[in-house]
Order: sequence, then structure tokens, then C-alpha cells
Amino acid sequence: MTASRRLSFWGWGYEDRFPDAETRAQLGAQLHALLGLEGAPPTVREPPTLADVRLPDPRVAVPAALAGFCTAAREDRVRHTYGRSYRDLVRGFLGDFSPAPDLVAYPEDEAQIQALLRWAAEARVAVIPRGGGTSVVGGVEADLDEESAGAYAGVVCLDLRALDRVLEVDRRSLSARIQAGATGPAIDQQLAAHDLTLRHFPQSYEFATLGGYIATRSGGHFATVYTHIDEFVQSLRTVTPQGVMESRRLPGSGAGPSPDRLVIGSEGVFGVITEAWMRVRQRPRWRSSASVMFTGYDAAVEAARALAQSGLHPANCRLLDRREAMINGVAPGDAHVLILGFESADHPTDAWMERALERALACGGRCPEGPRHRDARASAEKPGSAGAAGAWRQAFFDGPYLQTALVSLGMIVDTFETACTWDRFPALHKAVVSNVRAAIQRVTGRKGLLTCRFTHVYPDGPAPYFTFIAPNQDGPEAALERWAELKRVASDTLLEHGATITHHHAVGRVHRPWYQRQRPELFARALASAKAALDPAGVMNPGVLLTPEERDAARRA
Amino acid sequence: MTASRRLSFWGWGYEDRFPDAETRAQLGAQLHALLGLEGAPPTVREPPTLADVRLPDPRVAVPAALAGFCTAAREDRVRHTYGRSYRDLVRGFLGDFSPAPDLVAYPEDEAQIQALLRWAAEARVAVIPRGGGTSVVGGVEADLDEESAGAYAGVVCLDLRALDRVLEVDRRSLSARIQAGATGPAIDQQLAAHDLTLRHFPQSYEFATLGGYIATRSGGHFATVYTHIDEFVQSLRTVTPQGVMESRRLPGSGAGPSPDRLVIGSEGVFGVITEAWMRVRQRPRWRSSASVMFTGYDAAVEAARALAQSGLHPANCRLLDRREAMINGVAPGDAHVLILGFESADHPTDAWMERALERALACGGRCPEGPRHRDARASAEKPGSAGAAGAWRQAFFDGPYLQTALVSLGMIVDTFETACTWDRFPALHKAVVSNVRAAIQRVTGRKGLLTCRFTHVYPDGPAPYFTFIAPNQDGPEAALERWAELKRVASDTLLEHGATITHHHAVGRVHRPWYQRQRPELFARALASAKAALDPAGVMNPGVLLTPEERDAARRA
Repeated sequence: MTASRRLSFWGWGYEDRFPDAETRAQLGAQLHALLGLEGAPPTVREPPTLADVRLPDPRVAVPAALAGFCTAAREDRVRHTYGRSYRDLVRGFLGDFSPAPDLVAYPEDEAQIQALLRWAAEARVAVIPRGGGTSVVGGVEADLDEESAGAYAGVVCLDLRALDRVLEVDRRSLSARIQAGATGPAIDQQLAAHDLTLRHFPQSYEFATLGGYIATRSGGHFATVYTHIDEFVQSLRTVTPQGVMESRRLPGSGAGPSPDRLVIGSEGVFGVITEAWMRVRQRPRWRSSASVMFTGYDAAVEAARALAQSGLHPANCRLLDRREAMINGVAPGDAHVLILGFESADHPTDAWMERALERALACGGRCPEGPRHRDARASAEKPGSAGAAGAWRQAFFDGPYLQTALVSLGMIVDTFETACTWDRFPALHKAVVSNVRAAIQRVTGRKGLLTCRFTHVYPDGPAPYFTFIAPNQDGPEAALERWAELKRVASDTLLEHGATITHHHAVGRVHRPWYQRQRPELFARALASAKAALDPAGVMNPGVLLTPEERDAARRA
Repeated sequence: MTASRRLSFWGWGYEDRFPDAETRAQLGAQLHALLGLEGAPPTVREPPTLADVRLPDPRVAVPAALAGFCTAAREDRVRHTYGRSYRDLVRGFLGDFSPAPDLVAYPEDEAQIQALLRWAAEARVAVIPRGGGTSVVGGVEADLDEESAGAYAGVVCLDLRALDRVLEVDRRSLSARIQAGATGPAIDQQLAAHDLTLRHFPQSYEFATLGGYIATRSGGHFATVYTHIDEFVQSLRTVTPQGVMESRRLPGSGAGPSPDRLVIGSEGVFGVITEAWMRVRQRPRWRSSASVMFTGYDAAVEAARALAQSGLHPANCRLLDRREAMINGVAPGDAHVLILGFESADHPTDAWMERALERALACGGRCPEGPRHRDARASAEKPGSAGAAGAWRQAFFDGPYLQTALVSLGMIVDTFETACTWDRFPALHKAVVSNVRAAIQRVTGRKGLLTCRFTHVYPDGPAPYFTFIAPNQDGPEAALERWAELKRVASDTLLEHGATITHHHAVGRVHRPWYQRQRPELFARALASAKAALDPAGVMNPGVLLTPEERDAARRA
């Protein structure tokens, strides 16, 4: 993390991680071979420059009172237009920044946030809170066309990254008060001084912020028990248009419905999360890991289920199907791989791993390399020494960079994820594979790649995560249209099989039509009414979670 | 559980468990000795008969359309007047049933519940959903005087106990669909056929119902991780005055704020929970238990903290202070006792217990009897063979019966419970001990007994549970007034020290003034607005969680 490293204004992460044309051409050829495609490899196109991009003039001017931390400058607006979904990358690559916010604000304290919200409510300007801008569901993109026409005078993006500090550490209670704009690395770096860590590793770890984690119910590193950021929230502080809402620091409570659970996952519709007391932990000393290979997929799923129900609480229990294992360099494509891990700051984890392996092998797995046990004090961990788990981890964090490179080749590359009960998984899996493959064939005329992994497992069901790569020779514009059809097919299939439209990517604007089908209608009314109480002008992140009609009905009531 | 066994209409549980006068006289003498009191032992009074009790005439008549499952009969009204708090027991003992509901309904299906809610909304009759009636916080008691005078024409108590079945079992996903009126034993008995259990053991287990657990965020058997019923809820079905709200069966989700978490802990203000898909588990085969003795309380607390933060996830980790250990027959009063337990359906728990003991002994504990490991298949467990843990468990379930007996002696006996972070616990504990002891001395002129145990422990803090017993020679009427002062002192102390007014007893009407100070004011507004959307007539359990003013402000908005 050097301050001088520039972030891409359209793609994932740092500019210098975008491969040159030759490397991308090789990548295209490799993928063509992988997918077994005939004909010419994909065309390598050059990304846009800042000078190329198109965006409308701002509809509102910076109010004098907010001029100290608010701007209408072109580059700021460009850099705050999109999240980092596949659709965002393609539109960015095409230089289309038409949904750019009119203004960008960089508040440095709550007083500035409150001043901004007051002005926005009066001026009818929509406010989009933004952390790392890594949303893959259109959570940070204004779409005023879709909202009641003329309801808003404009859009201001509220960038929280100046609020990036760990303010307080309570070592006895393993708790820390952290500002919402702090990224994963910033948090862990500040906590490391206390030998503590938040230990929350979403794929967006490098850039996403605490406030973003909480607003979107981010999924982290632990495959069991502590799957979502939800479990780590001890208390929350949120600035709403009606004032500050702050909950009490409590390890647990039974006093009415949890005030925090209403804000967790609210995606900015009530207000701006400014800080939270988080449950943190000692950095683990002991680790055990193992990779178990399965010939049959059903047996591998049974092993994952057995472990999820065993009470062993593995930190890692990720089942990669054989294609997923292959594209991540974990196995050559001949086996499904269950990656197991235990970790502890308290005790060696050998006994846990031994029992987990017993269960996995009893389901028909093989563990040719055996388990690996490590003690961080006994031996410094060497890079690359972590076996399949290490290969997987590296591929995991590189994934979004790869996606960005593939966008420049016109390819269609996206992921979708869900959760369902174990009884429903076989039918869901079969339908997803069959429907999405058929859709790829239909819209591209060729076959693509579809892979599945479990990111998290629960006693009552898995959280499957699908990746698809589809060929496309007709450039990014065509890719976007084809992607929309694939996304629709995938989402419909999830909903029809009783699964959730998202396990940890959030709803945003992209998933809203399916979220509407999923959540109880009366819950939407309750949510809209709660929003009307906290944000009577309806300026907070319009378009996520609730439709304009749902929101307006509650405001009129 | 024989159908013919009669429940006490005023005290805890079965009538036949109420001791005769001689036994109670002995109990009074024992307690006098225990408290070191001088003078005559407490007077033994006789409980009321049904013929003795006083209650007003019903204000509303049974509507013809609901006559099939609704009654205004005197005994039904008496038996549905109170929960089972200390205050309820005393008022019941005194024969004062003035807050009796006007009607009692026993619906057998959702259609009847919907019909009842429709009528209630039209007729402005308050509806109090009721399961086992074991609330200790005034959660099931109408108090229309306190509500805006004349706002309600009357009160109907909605008894859900006819909905007592396990409707469906999904063995693969360890899930069961259960009706809200089923009691703990009824649930476990039906699940036993599948070798499954809900494994939720609140002190009210014998009588409390699933709907009550969920509406009040009941605390169960597990001392760590799965502390509240919240964690076991997979999906919920709730009948509101605006229709049915049902969530999707999901092992985990990130799609917006959790719809279930809004209903969990809502204490009936939105509607009536009618059924839930619950996460159940295999009955444990292996168990390990141990009792660790500590001379110093601080060392014992440190051991509990070390274990809560160890990641060992003990099923039991209850710290009894020396007085608590004494009155529960666990130790003679010379040591604080940490009761540890591990259990599993998957693996022997020896390694877990060994490491837990290492940590506890390193904090200065002694384990003279060593750990006990059991395999249910190897040896049937003999009654009384469970050592301190067994003594504790029996005393735990007998507690409410003991309280009822002491009420008949005019004694003041109650519990209060909370949770706070570890950093705040020492000051909180000191203040509670000092303030409550001083208050007992002040209001009774004598010293009483105050004990503390941890019911649950979290990485970030404990859930302390206090019991107090105070002498009172002036009969139940005086006891009630003195109790109110002790309750006020205890509750103020909790709030002043950053703790919660309740960890698992709920808010109801008794805790509401402190809950108002605890919860964010804007959250109350959001909650009231959500209620206005689901219950526009405001008939659902008025008086819990929200004040009449909070509720009415949202209805006017």
C-alpha cells in the first residue's frame, strides 16, 4: 500500500495490476483453449483513458457551506460513478459514465456528514454513502431515471474513506471502536499493534471498508459459525437525516428486536454508518489445513454436510468442484476438492483436524498429502508453503483483477452466490448447471464454463458460489446484453428453488427485482415505514432494497 | 406430563408441587438460619382458592363469530391474568386478579387467529398473545389503565397452546417446522422419534412455548455461541393484523436486514408467531463435565473470560459465586464454582475438556474430582451421577417452585439478569452487590442474600444473573412495595454501568422504563413505524416495548 499507487478509474484495484496487451492476448488464448472454443481468440482492446470518458454536466452546484469537503470535479465524479460489478467494469471500459454523481463529498467528521444530510434533505438531493466502492450489485450507483422522474434534483456521493481510524481498543473484551471508512488492511494494520485482528477477509478485502461490510452483510473468512460481519458487530453508530442512532456496547442482549440487526444489511437507506464497536480476536498461532479429493460430487457434498453438522466448527470448509479447483490452480481438474482448515490462538488444532479428516474420508475422500499442522511461533510461514489452501487464497484475491482483464477481451465473466437448505441443494445445483449452461449456449452460440464452490457451510445448508465464463466475439456492448440474460436466468433459478438471491453480495439495485420476490411483502412495508421515520425526505440511497412505490407508500401513510 | 395434573392458577407449575404448610415452615426456618436473621421465622400463609379470587366483570362479550374458540368464563380469565414474575406470584397469592383479560381465545388454526385479529382491530380490543404464560416481565398482562384511557374496549388473551405440533422434519438439513404453541417437552418428545432435539432449555422449559421463546429472545442451554433462540430460527411465520408474513427457509442470507430478526424479540407487537422452521440437532452422545473451584472471585472471572475467548465453545461454562453454589447444593459455600461442559453427537469431547481445564487451572482453579467423560452408548446415565452439574441442573428447574413457596412466607425473592463487556464487569458487579445489599437493608431493616452466576459467556463479555432473597415479616402486601424498590435500584445500577436491562428475560411492561433509556431513541421511532405498518389499529400487545406516546406518534405520522 503506497499512497502514490493509482487506482484504476474503471477496473478493479490498482492501475499497475492491469496486464499489458500481450499478456492479455495470452490469457485470451489460454481461456479459449480451456473452453474448447474454435475460431479466432478474443480481440484485445485497449482500456479508456480519463480523457475519453463521457459524463453529463452536474445538475447541482456545490453549496457554499459544504465547499470545504465537497466537489463537482470531473475526475472525482468519474471515480465515484460505479461499483465493481461485471456490468460496471464493462460500462467503465466503454467510457460510459452517464450515471456519474453530480457531487462528491469527502467528510472528515460526523458534523460534516450531518451538514451534508441536512442540505440534501432540503435540496432533494439523493445521497449515496460509499466506502471502497467495491459493490457488485449496483449498491453505489445512482439511477434517478428509474426513480420517480423529477423527485431528486441530483445525486451526491458521500465518500467515507477519510474516516479510517481504529479509535479505541478494549483488549480485555476483545473489542475495538473503528471508523466506517477504514479498509480491511487499514483495520488489521492498526489492530496488529495490539496483536489483534478483525479477521474478516471478503474478496474485496484490499479496498472495502468496515461501513460497507456492515451495510451489505459482508461474508468473511470463517466458513462456519462466524460467516457474516453481522456476528462481529458489538454496537453501531449511524448518522440518519433525523439525527444520530447509537446502540449500546453489549456482548449479547434480549431487550427487544436487535437495533443493530435492523441497520446491518440496510445498504444506506436509513443513514450513514460512521463507526462501530467490533468484536476482534487474537491472531491465530496454530493452524491445521488439509485438502481432501473426491471423485464424485455427491460424496464431496455429503462430506461438507457432515462437517457442517459435526460441531467441529472448521475455519475453512470450502468445497471446490473440479472445474473450480482447476481454474484456481488447486487440482488438475480430475477431482473435487474440499479445503479444510482449523486455526486457534489458544490450542493446537491437530485433534480437530484429525476428526474432520475421519469424517471426510468416511465419505469417500482421499487426502494424499495428509494434514499440515503449523505453529506460527515454531516456524515462520514461508510464502507458497500453504499447499492447495495457499493456491486457493492467492487465486481468490486475484480473481477480480482477472475479471477486469477479461472484460478488455470482451468476455463475459461473472459470479453469483446463494444459500439454501441441504435438502434443496441437489435440485438447485442441477437446475443452475443445466439452465445457465443452456443460456450460455443460447446467447453466445457456444459453450462456456460454470464452476461452483461452497464459500460457507451451515448445519442446515451450504452457501454455493458460482462463477461463469462465456465467450463473446462481439465486443463489450454485446457482452453486456448477453450478461443480462445470463444473470436473469441464474437469478430466476435461485428464486424458483427456494434459495436466496444473495448470501453475502447484498441486494443493491441489481438484485432488487428478485429480492422483491423473496422477502415477505409485509416486511418490505415495515422496512419502508422504518425508513420513512429515519429519512422522511427519502434521500438516502434511493433505489436499493425498496422500489420507489414501496418507499413513497410508506411516506404517504 | 399427565393431562390430569392441574396447574396452579397463581403459582409456578403444577399444583401438586406446592409444599404443605409444615414443609414451608421448615423452609422458612432454614432460610432464616441461612440469612442469619434473628427473631421469629416467617409466617406461613395459605394460598388462595379459585373461589377466593377477585376480578372485574368482562368489558366485552364473546362475539358470536368467535364463540367456537373464545370464552369469558371466570376460571379461564383467572388463569390467563398473569405471567410468573415475583410480582405476579404475590398478586396471585393475594387473590387480586384485577388485570384479568375480558376474554380468552384458544384458536386451533391460523384462520381463527386471523378472524380474531380482524375483530379485535375493528372492536379496538387489545390482543395479548400467550404461550406458556411464564413471562417474568409483565409480557402477558394487560394494563389498559396505563394506556391512553378509553383507547381500548377490552382485552383478549390469545392462548396458542392448541398449536402444539411438530409439522415436518427435514433430517438432512437438521430442521423442523414447529407450531408456536408447543412446549419444550412437547417439541423434544416429537423430535425424539427422529433422534433429534431442539436442545433449548430455559428455566421455563417445562411450560414455555416456541412462540414465547422467539417473541422474547429466550436464552437456552448453551453457554457459548448458540446462547439465544435467535440462532436456531431458520424462518418464521407471523400472522399480523395486515396478513401473514412468512420468511424463506435459509441457512444464512445477506439479502437486506434480516426479516426474522425484526420479529425475534418483538414480544407480540407486530402480530402472532404461528410457526417456525427451527434448526434442531442430533442428541449428543459424548459428554464431558467438570467443576472447578476458586478461592478468589476475580480469578474465577478470569477463568470464565479465558474460556469464553478460547474458541473451545463449551456447552456449559457457568460460574456460580460461592453463595450461588451454596444455595444450589453445588458446594458448601467456601468456593466459587465454574461448571464446565462439552457435548457432541460427533466425537468424544475429552480433548476439549482437557484444554479447558488447563486454562481454568492456570487461572488458579482446583478440580479435585477431575473431569468426567461419558458415552451415552457405553453406559446409561444414572440419576444423581452427574456431580455438581447434575445438582445444579436439578436446582435450576426447581427454582421457580421454590420461589412460589417462599412467596407464601411473605419473603422477597427475585432474580435479574444482564450482560456487559468484560471491561465493565468488575465495576458493575461491585455496584450491584453494594447497591442491592444496601437497598435490602434499607427497605427491610435486615440483611438479605444476593448471589450471582454467569448464565452465558461471550468473547466480549459475560451474562451475569443475580438472585436476591430478602426477609419480610410484614406479609405479601408490604413485600410487593419493598420488591419494587429493590427492582428499581437493581435496574438503575445495570443501566448506569452500561449493561442491558435484560439478556434473556425480555422487556415486557416491567423493564420498559429502563429499556427506553437503553435503546436508541431513533430505533424506537423505527420500531413504532414498523408496528404502525403491520398493526395500524395498535391492538397487538399494547404496553410492551413501546410507550403509548411512541406508538401513537408513529400512527399519526
